[in-house]
Amino acid sequence: MSTEATGPRLHAIYAPIAADLDRLDEFLGREFHSIEPFICQLLTHIARFRGKQIRPALLLLVARLTGGEVTDDQLKIAAVIELIHTATLVHDDILDDAALRRNVETIHRRWGERAGVLLGDYIYSRAFSLSTEVEGMAAVLSATTHTICEGELLQIGNRFRPEIGEEVYFEIIRKKTAILYAVACYLGGVLSGADEEDAARLRSFGMDLGMAFQIIDDCLDYSGDESVVGKSLGTDLHQGKMTLPLILLRESLDREGAKALLESFHGPMTSSLESRIATQVRERGALREANRRAQSFIESSRSAIAGLDPRLRESLEMVADYVLRRQR
Amino acid sequence: MSTEATGPRLHAIYAPIAADLDRLDEFLGREFHSIEPFICQLLTHIARFRGKQIRPALLLLVARLTGGEVTDDQLKIAAVIELIHTATLVHDDILDDAALRRNVETIHRRWGERAGVLLGDYIYSRAFSLSTEVEGMAAVLSATTHTICEGELLQIGNRFRPEIGEEVYFEIIRKKTAILYAVACYLGGVLSGADEEDAARLRSFGMDLGMAFQIIDDCLDYSGDESVVGKSLGTDLHQGKMTLPLILLRESLDREGAKALLESFHGPMTSSLESRIATQVRERGALREANRRAQSFIESSRSAIAGLDPRLRESLEMVADYVLRRQR
Repeated sequence: MSTEATGPRLHAIYAPIAADLDRLDEFLGREFHSIEPFICQLLTHIARFRGKQIRPALLLLVARLTGGEVTDDQLKIAAVIELIHTATLVHDDILDDAALRRNVETIHRRWGERAGVLLGDYIYSRAFSLSTEVEGMAAVLSATTHTICEGELLQIGNRFRPEIGEEVYFEIIRKKTAILYAVACYLGGVLSGADEEDAARLRSFGMDLGMAFQIIDDCLDYSGDESVVGKSLGTDLHQGKMTLPLILLRESLDREGAKALLESFHGPMTSSLESRIATQVRERGALREANRRAQSFIESSRSAIAGLDPRLRESLEMVADYVLRRQR
Repeated sequence: MSTEATGPRLHAIYAPIAADLDRLDEFLGREFHSIEPFICQLLTHIARFRGKQIRPALLLLVARLTGGEVTDDQLKIAAVIELIHTATLVHDDILDDAALRRNVETIHRRWGERAGVLLGDYIYSRAFSLSTEVEGMAAVLSATTHTICEGELLQIGNRFRPEIGEEVYFEIIRKKTAILYAVACYLGGVLSGADEEDAARLRSFGMDLGMAFQIIDDCLDYSGDESVVGKSLGTDLHQGKMTLPLILLRESLDREGAKALLESFHGPMTSSLESRIATQVRERGALREANRRAQSFIESSRSAIAGLDPRLRESLEMVADYVLRRQR
């Protein structure tokens, strides 16, 4: 039995929005279609990447438990958020040269990089176009996407810089990951008439939740099982991505050890060097410590929503619990 | 003396908007800046790609010659159009694996593909974000970008399909290129209070102009001088792009010749095969014929604006003349 099984299951968490998720599915099904055979083939393929859909589900949970019936506008914005996320995945897979996504071959591996780059652009622009159909949404969602790209660029600019500290890492993941969780929760509130204070609480909940999500993701890159996670793992170190487990390993080492670690990033990253560092990360408590950081973001996310309606609060807490315990 | 020198010079064409182009320069200068050193380095680099800026210039010409003073909103939308164009260039260079752009090293060649993909996304999302600041613009500009991506995907889907006809080619270039010219002219009109009929004329002018622009571009890929054009040439054939010169060559051949041409696309495209086909394109009148098609789009663009105010009409006709005669 996996750890995940001891925590809340997505199926139970999503129960209040089961019908809304069906509508979302239909909506996205129509979006992942084109009369052009080649484009349709690509869209049908990436439709298979659809996974937990946590971001739109958060928006829908907030909307339903705040305002009742989920409106067409709310559904549309939930779809836009999933589309933006999908576009980032398609481009991420090229950047990481990942072979698999949800155990399915990635776009660029099957149809080449040019198809991957353009399909991402195609989905981004469709998401923006859809967002203009709901008053006030386009500004928030395009600015959010801009921040995501900024975070990803910061990550690239800090590759193979083993000296960076936690604060740089936290800034990167806040921008590249957490903000979309924050905005999903925030817009769920705004679109169902929550007052400013509650909307700010929801935003803050989403931000902390997103931070925890990314930290767990970065831990799974060292500790996960590819067949369970459904994507290529162990790639962060190879690409010189300074994620939290590696930063914490460096901090846990004595002067001599830290110096050796820093120096190992100066030359080429051989696979034996990689496997030595990865073993250190696993064995010297860095993963445990990183998980503790994730735990503390989850606690912070819980406090942010302490003042909300109990039904909504409990529902969001289940999501938080899920994010912390997930194995994939 | 180049052919270009016998036609109108951009400097003279842009005279009515010289001051507005300075403002655009300042505006874009601020956009191509970031407090993040790595991002700033990339933006500073691509600022050097800025070239003829025909698209924003068209918007500004239309705006000034229709409504007088160029407003901040008009300037902003001109900048958005240039940013969208810049983002497509950054991604195009990755797709084409181009080494040079305006005689400057391309982003992906210098900083890697991941930087290129993300920088394009960063600029796209900034463009959309800016467009939301002017009422009604975000919807048009995101839909336009979506169409551009669709055109590029269609082009990919039709690579190495030597049997496609002119109508497929025209659909591709209408979507990937001409529409942004059309929208630049159209929005220049809309934002300066042109009536619906005139706005439609301007749109139609821009569309035909953009078609001619792309046809000339595709001819230059066979006939141009890299040092003049400032980018890598001869790449279309290698990439299996079925552009007009190649389509017209096939149409000009007898049955036997056409069959041989089609078959040469079945196997690997060796460089000796490439050079043989390129020579055929140049020597069998296909380029001349393609130029004739461009000429006919230019004539059609002129008729579209026959009813406009003479000052505006003459100014746009000079742009049309420039596009037809350009060598780079």
